[in-house]
Parts: sequence; structure tokens; C-alpha cells
Amino acid sequence: MARVSQEHLDARRRQILDGAALCFARNGFHATSMQDVLKEVGLSAGAVYRYFSGKDELIHAIVSEVLGEIRAIFEEAARQTPPPPPDVLVGHAFGQVLGLRPELAQDGRAYFPRLLVQAWTETLRNDELRALIQGGYDGVRAAWVRIVEGYQAAGMMRADVSADRVARTMIAVAQGFAAQVALIDDVPVDALGDGLRGLMSMGEPG
Amino acid sequence: MARVSQEHLDARRRQILDGAALCFARNGFHATSMQDVLKEVGLSAGAVYRYFSGKDELIHAIVSEVLGEIRAIFEEAARQTPPPPPDVLVGHAFGQVLGLRPELAQDGRAYFPRLLVQAWTETLRNDELRALIQGGYDGVRAAWVRIVEGYQAAGMMRADVSADRVARTMIAVAQGFAAQVALIDDVPVDALGDGLRGLMSMGEPG
Repeated sequence: MARVSQEHLDARRRQILDGAALCFARNGFHATSMQDVLKEVGLSAGAVYRYFSGKDELIHAIVSEVLGEIRAIFEEAARQTPPPPPDVLVGHAFGQVLGLRPELAQDGRAYFPRLLVQAWTETLRNDELRALIQGGYDGVRAAWVRIVEGYQAAGMMRADVSADRVARTMIAVAQGFAAQVALIDDVPVDALGDGLRGLMSMGEPG
Repeated sequence: MARVSQEHLDARRRQILDGAALCFARNGFHATSMQDVLKEVGLSAGAVYRYFSGKDELIHAIVSEVLGEIRAIFEEAARQTPPPPPDVLVGHAFGQVLGLRPELAQDGRAYFPRLLVQAWTETLRNDELRALIQGGYDGVRAAWVRIVEGYQAAGMMRADVSADRVARTMIAVAQGFAAQVALIDDVPVDALGDGLRGLMSMGEPG
């Protein structure tokens, strides 16, 4: 029996994930069957089930991958002294996430926001996905706490507010804007940086 | 045949909407059947279908009602000169929305955020709900534009940023925080006001 290289296994896994992601982006988690995924990737059931036990495992792998990419962006920012200001950082991070898998866009809408909104609903009845999203949130939040502490240490933000609460607020604005991009017509994708710049001008440094 | 008063019709409609909302909050839109709703409200199919043609119409009525309440909060704020600052206003609005229908909370989680996240996913395949949410968003955005213009006129915010973009950003932070309350454990519901206060301290007024 021929030895199968790790590169081949990885490429096959990637092919399956991208095909499944395309199906989910097009029709949503619920309207997508494993048959649809098999058809999209052009592989046999035996070949696909060798990698993934079913739809839930595919959803988990896809969401996990994107959460990892988001977390890496903010961990990188947390290592800078001082970190980039929120309007620059969130604008940059959002642009990077929107740019992930451009070939999966549907009707001109970026892929990931649509996936994210579906994943949120899915957590209401899928405990493993819920735990995955909770873990992703906790990881990004920890990075954001370090970023906010960096702002406060540099005198860029009043120091008498909880870094954890600012971190949750920064994640909220990105989550909510992702929901807008997924759901609302004609959202300018660079609005978030400008909006934060306006908001940041409202108070006096502590 | 006895004449049925408008009060009776309204009360019956309210009873059906609240029963349906409880079912949706408990099990989600998809896992809820019209049979579940009939059982919950203790009425016959004939009595319920007199008011609502089915699940989609119930979802539409419930989401429409809450969007109207949110819009009223921001339209009221837009009438003030100057409007309350974002940390105060968003904190207040969020508290009011979380306080809606406290009897519908599930596992200690407020009702509306869970409903909202489900409604977002539902819009990906339900065009009428999509149009409803688009209209709700546009209404709240128009109110927020007037609020931001009020900040700018009062010298509270730099005037060289687009009021529309700040409006979208303010809506995003509330939407994202609603998603956190629905999905993430132990989110302090008053974190948003504090987080915005930190963010507002970061720049200099224009």
C-alpha cells in the first residue's frame, strides 16, 4: 500500500474544509447536508469521513481556524509598545478578517461574518461549539486586556476604568460590526475605524 | 353571537405573542413548532390562527415589537440638547432592553439577546425578516445620526468624522454586546458603559 505523505493529508483536509465552508456560506449550516459537501469537494464519503465524522466536526474545525486567526492578530498587537490605537487596530483586524477566503464571498458579502452569525445561533444548541466560541472569546479578551493596559501605561487612556471592561467593549464593537456586514445592505467596511475615531474624541484623558 | 371587545382581542394577541416568545427563548425558532406554541398558550389552533398565520408571522411580530422599543429609546435621546453621552445613553438603553420581559429569561440569561441572535441567522433565509431588521437598523441609525450631530454641535465630539459612521459604530457596539450576553458566560451587563468611558478618553476633541 502506497505511503501517503503528510502534505497530501493536509491538502486533502484543506480541500474538504474549503468545500464545506463554501456550502455553509452559500446555504447556511442547516440547509447543508454531508451529501452537499461530498458533491462540492468531489470526494467519496469514505475519503471525507476519514477526516471528519460529520457536519458538526466540520463546523467546529472551520470556526476554530478563523478564531485562531483573529486571536493571532490581537496577540501580535498586544506585543507592541504602545499598541496601535483602537481605530487603527480594529480597522486593520477587520480588514484582515474580511479578506480571509475571498473566494467564499456570496452576493458580494464577505464569507466570515455570515459564518460567524450562524455559529452564534448554533451555540444555543451545540455545547461543543459554545465551548469553542467561549474559549476563542476568552483568548481574544486576554489579548485585548494587555492592549488596554498598554494604552493605560502609555497615558493614552484614563487609567481608572477596568481594562477587562474596555476589552469586552472592543470585542463587542467588532462582533456587532461583523453582524452588520453579514445582514445589512451597503455597510461601508471601513466605517468602524472612523466611528471609533469620533468616539475616542469625546472625553478627556484621565 | 357575543360581541368581542378590542381589549379582549388585544389581550389575546398579547397572550399568544408572550407564549410564543417563551417557546422561542427556551428552544429556539427552529425547534419550536406551532403545536408547542398552542400548548404553551393553552388555546386551540383556531383561536391562534385567527391572529397569526404561523411561526414566521409570530417571529416577525415579536422582533418588530422589540425593534420598535429600541428605536423609541434612541429617538427620545435624539430630542435632547445635547444628547446624553454615549456611555450613559448606551448603558441606559441596554439596561432597558435587557429588562424587557424578565419573565422570559432562560438560565439567568435575558430573553432579548438570545432572540436577536437567532433572528440574525434567520434573516439569511427569510427575506421578510431581513427587510424588517434592515428597516429597524435604518430607523435606529437615523436617530443615532441626529444624536451624533448633537454631540458635534455641542463641541462634545470632533466634527470632522461622519455622523453616519459613528452611528453605525454605536449600533455595532450594542449589537455585539447583545451577542456576548446571549452567548458568553458571566458577562457583566454594565461593562459597556465603563468600556465606552475608557474609549472616549483616548483622543482629543477636534
